[in-house]
Amino acid sequence: MTAGFERLAINHATVPRWTTEEVIAGAARAGYCAVGLWRDRIAECGAGRAARLAHAAGLNVSSLCRGGWFCAPDALGRRARMLDNFRAVDEAAELGASVLVLVCGPSSTKDLETGRRQVAEAVVELADYAASLGIPLAIEPMHPLYCGDRSVVVTLEQAITLARSVTAHHVGVIVDSYHLWWDPLLATSISDATGRIFGFQIADWLAPPPDPLHGRGMLGDGTIDLRRFRELVDATGYSGPIEVEIFNPSVWALDPDHALQLIGARYLEHVA
Amino acid sequence: MTAGFERLAINHATVPRWTTEEVIAGAARAGYCAVGLWRDRIAECGAGRAARLAHAAGLNVSSLCRGGWFCAPDALGRRARMLDNFRAVDEAAELGASVLVLVCGPSSTKDLETGRRQVAEAVVELADYAASLGIPLAIEPMHPLYCGDRSVVVTLEQAITLARSVTAHHVGVIVDSYHLWWDPLLATSISDATGRIFGFQIADWLAPPPDPLHGRGMLGDGTIDLRRFRELVDATGYSGPIEVEIFNPSVWALDPDHALQLIGARYLEHVA
Repeated sequence: MTAGFERLAINHATVPRWTTEEVIAGAARAGYCAVGLWRDRIAECGAGRAARLAHAAGLNVSSLCRGGWFCAPDALGRRARMLDNFRAVDEAAELGASVLVLVCGPSSTKDLETGRRQVAEAVVELADYAASLGIPLAIEPMHPLYCGDRSVVVTLEQAITLARSVTAHHVGVIVDSYHLWWDPLLATSISDATGRIFGFQIADWLAPPPDPLHGRGMLGDGTIDLRRFRELVDATGYSGPIEVEIFNPSVWALDPDHALQLIGARYLEHVA
Repeated sequence: MTAGFERLAINHATVPRWTTEEVIAGAARAGYCAVGLWRDRIAECGAGRAARLAHAAGLNVSSLCRGGWFCAPDALGRRARMLDNFRAVDEAAELGASVLVLVCGPSSTKDLETGRRQVAEAVVELADYAASLGIPLAIEPMHPLYCGDRSVVVTLEQAITLARSVTAHHVGVIVDSYHLWWDPLLATSISDATGRIFGFQIADWLAPPPDPLHGRGMLGDGTIDLRRFRELVDATGYSGPIEVEIFNPSVWALDPDHALQLIGARYLEHVA
């Protein structure tokens, strides 16, 4: 591991030109501590092979992206979603992932409260299955920008309340600077999340936002005080990986090895 | 006024191809009750002339957009911003506008708390001047999507707290469905705003969002339960204009008279 990179992890979505095998090899070369992997990309090589490669490279799998997408207009549709989530838990187990990330939405009707109730019921059911395999679940509160097409869980406070509603302690939250930085209750909410922070992702916020889906910023290019954000999370006792997840065509256009070097340098300058 | 349109108002930003004179004439033709006007567009004809035209057409001026933009790195910069806000109050008075809308940000540093403190201090100072001319100020909480480039006030609860921190009762809030619909505390916050709702704007939320700045949706085209939103606002006792403000190139491309007819029909179907 590179000095100073003891907590630095890369999410595959930041370097999508690489295969799962390549992101594991590349992260090891760059001296990172862990990789966050995606189900659709793991399908290329198989979860067992990805687990062996990561282990051999000395890397943890800091997250599996992603379960969730629980809502559907009818019970049959919701059952299909749940079965897919069971498979996601299986894959997380085979992969040895630290956590399965949950996208909690979108609502299938204009009534967000119905969507939120369906999410809460699904998390309870999935938690039972995940517990049987020892897989922690992490609810990801997403920026309100995604409320219509991804997640009805949009604030950290809401995510914590949902996580705590499941009595088992293997349901927590992912905090992501991009999703949460704007919240006037940020400091209080992070403090409230003590003991339930199961993962930590970072990207910067570009202003004005260039594109809702692909406009996340390279560390240091945007408006977020990333170091303060990290200090707030650390103050809860979280000492796990800090996973860089940047959806941005200009980052994707870089040579992936170069992207990991740039991210490493920016991480030391703006985050660590 | 057209039957059913007793509360329907048009914001000039929805039909920017028209001049201020044209939007007043067009709104009267379409049987709307009021117009929301913009400072940069009023400059074309003068506030006094716009006031006389609106009065002659039997229209109220439901809002003047917009004051605010209070933050700056130094005191001299903040003073320049305040002087411009004094001018905005003068224009609102000349125009006979029901309210001056305030955009509360963006922060000039990565420290959002500093930005929020500068906003709070500026609102207090501006309120004194506005009170002397009898102009109500309306803080507009904006979607967190705009936190980096427009407003550090992103939730209704935050806007109400800020409005209440000014003891005078001529500081309130604007509620806008596009900015607020995602909030898990929406119903409670609207109820808390009782007596402080000085304006009400609507647009739909398109999913996935097509463009951060110009992606507001025609009523009924998106994910917001606009009728429930209106009922929540009405339940506070607010009975003023409902101003349609849609920033969207596909709406702008319509013949403006046709746009007003379409909006009227959609308003009756989805809002009234």
